[in-house]
Amino acid sequence: MITGPAVESLEGTGHQLLEQARARVRPSLRDRVEGRLTENRAAAGYHLGWLDEHGDPSEAGAGKAVRPALCYAAAEAVEGDIKEAGSAAMTVQLVHDFSLAHDDIIDGDRVRRNRPAVWAAFGTPAGVLCGDALLSLAFITLAEAGGGGRALARLAEAVGELIEGEALDMAFEQREQVRLGEYTAMAAAKTGALMGCACALGALSAGCDENRADLLAAFGRHVGVAFQITDDVLGICGRQEVTGKPVGADLASGKKTLPILAALASGTPAGRELAELYAGPGELADEHVDRATHLVTEAGGVTAARQEIERELQQALAALAESGPAPRGRQQLTALAHVLTHRDQ
Amino acid sequence: MITGPAVESLEGTGHQLLEQARARVRPSLRDRVEGRLTENRAAAGYHLGWLDEHGDPSEAGAGKAVRPALCYAAAEAVEGDIKEAGSAAMTVQLVHDFSLAHDDIIDGDRVRRNRPAVWAAFGTPAGVLCGDALLSLAFITLAEAGGGGRALARLAEAVGELIEGEALDMAFEQREQVRLGEYTAMAAAKTGALMGCACALGALSAGCDENRADLLAAFGRHVGVAFQITDDVLGICGRQEVTGKPVGADLASGKKTLPILAALASGTPAGRELAELYAGPGELADEHVDRATHLVTEAGGVTAARQEIERELQQALAALAESGPAPRGRQQLTALAHVLTHRDQ
Repeated sequence: MITGPAVESLEGTGHQLLEQARARVRPSLRDRVEGRLTENRAAAGYHLGWLDEHGDPSEAGAGKAVRPALCYAAAEAVEGDIKEAGSAAMTVQLVHDFSLAHDDIIDGDRVRRNRPAVWAAFGTPAGVLCGDALLSLAFITLAEAGGGGRALARLAEAVGELIEGEALDMAFEQREQVRLGEYTAMAAAKTGALMGCACALGALSAGCDENRADLLAAFGRHVGVAFQITDDVLGICGRQEVTGKPVGADLASGKKTLPILAALASGTPAGRELAELYAGPGELADEHVDRATHLVTEAGGVTAARQEIERELQQALAALAESGPAPRGRQQLTALAHVLTHRDQ
Repeated sequence: MITGPAVESLEGTGHQLLEQARARVRPSLRDRVEGRLTENRAAAGYHLGWLDEHGDPSEAGAGKAVRPALCYAAAEAVEGDIKEAGSAAMTVQLVHDFSLAHDDIIDGDRVRRNRPAVWAAFGTPAGVLCGDALLSLAFITLAEAGGGGRALARLAEAVGELIEGEALDMAFEQREQVRLGEYTAMAAAKTGALMGCACALGALSAGCDENRADLLAAFGRHVGVAFQITDDVLGICGRQEVTGKPVGADLASGKKTLPILAALASGTPAGRELAELYAGPGELADEHVDRATHLVTEAGGVTAARQEIERELQQALAALAESGPAPRGRQQLTALAHVLTHRDQ
């Protein structure tokens, strides 16, 4: 863990990089979606934040642009021109937005970015189609940029992993026991694969070799796992007005995120009480959600999750060092790894 | 239209090609799905027909393998080795199965190939994920076969068109007026794009040039439109025990297929009576569906649709001739075009 004044500088750089990535990717993404989609344009424009449900302009939150930021910084790390990484940045953002559109249907989540989820606003059929349209546009975008067969193969593999990870996450809800190692493998698939792909595609857009792209992919994958666990911690002790998602929803629906699993496996009285609450049928009642939230912290689940985040972060930085990054890109990727895993939203 | 003994020979060849394509593509598809999917394997195996809903072996209908058959025959048309076309054939079948899994959710269709649709058997979340998993596996399959950037770009474009076509089809249900030209454009996107892609990818797997692949794609696209309209005719006057789909469902749900649109636009008394039935709110009652079925035929809708099928078929054969096909491949593609548009299922 990095401490002291260096942390403030990292935080500042990280937030600046995310802001720059949003400023870079959003206009081109909008042009692309509006230029290429017709029937799915309204739902996609709503989902991506520039339209409201009536098709009028909106300034809704459009996400953090985490994957584009990783993509640009990875291009810097191999001394590439970030302009060349623009299509790769759009591609990974499109895949991410595809996955959100479908995940909300799969999980039955009605709220996304403080608004009704696209399926809740437009219906399930439009939500399914919106996701499908964004996914195919991702492949079209990378193919048109001349990404070549190897880059497209990496994208396809990452999408395949992401989908298996989402299915695994759903399966965990029905299972009585999930080991911590199974959980991190799921997070690596669901979240790590696409973040790793973002780094690899950014680096490949600058013409780097496959070995270096692999190392940057490993960096992004570990950051992704740490990012997912950070999300899980926010699901326990974040604040809805900051995260945009109902806090306690993971507990209410019986999700098995890392802090919850660590609490259940802790062997503490709090862990046992949590297990009893979880053993009941159906969703947890509101008062039980509050108690369960307390128990996860009491049983050391949040602390264990934070330790796991640090471990993934160290592995990420080791892979980054091995890739022989240019100083500027290295600083950027380090700053992003830091802010993505020490955040309140 | 081809008549006399030549027709019988075409029919025999066409059915034989479909059977061969099924025998070729199914085992490799099953190996691939079982080797690459884990969490989505049960739903995919059910959807593709080799498992029942409990995960036990099944011999359910697994589709006609139309797109793989086109793919193999297009490879023959450019004098390629059909073994080289195996990955392309799997790819287009996977995309087709993706689209069926999602279409049934989108249309709320509970029956597919005489069994509950995958979403009806496993739930909507599993149905969404099954489709996503098959689509990503399609891209992985083509990428791993060394399809290269151009082949992957064609696939991405075809998938994008297919999705827009499906969205357009859904939008037509809500619209009062749909012109016949709008309908054929929708069918070209929803059905023609992937059939065209099947031909192009088969030809490209044999190393043919882009111009020839374009002409074979045009052939497949026109065959696809004719195939879709044939489907629409079967939706009016097919028999459920042969088609596997409830006959009259298109009329009941207010779909605007070509025979229905032609009947509505006919200016005949039957067409006006049909328009009155269609103007009512909600789904048509059963006795109205029977009457509407009669009115579509009476108003000349089925005859008009059959004329449109022949027109598309002629355009397909003209594009095929222009591609300078090898005699054996030409004969195969001609036979497929014939059986796909003169069928009872």
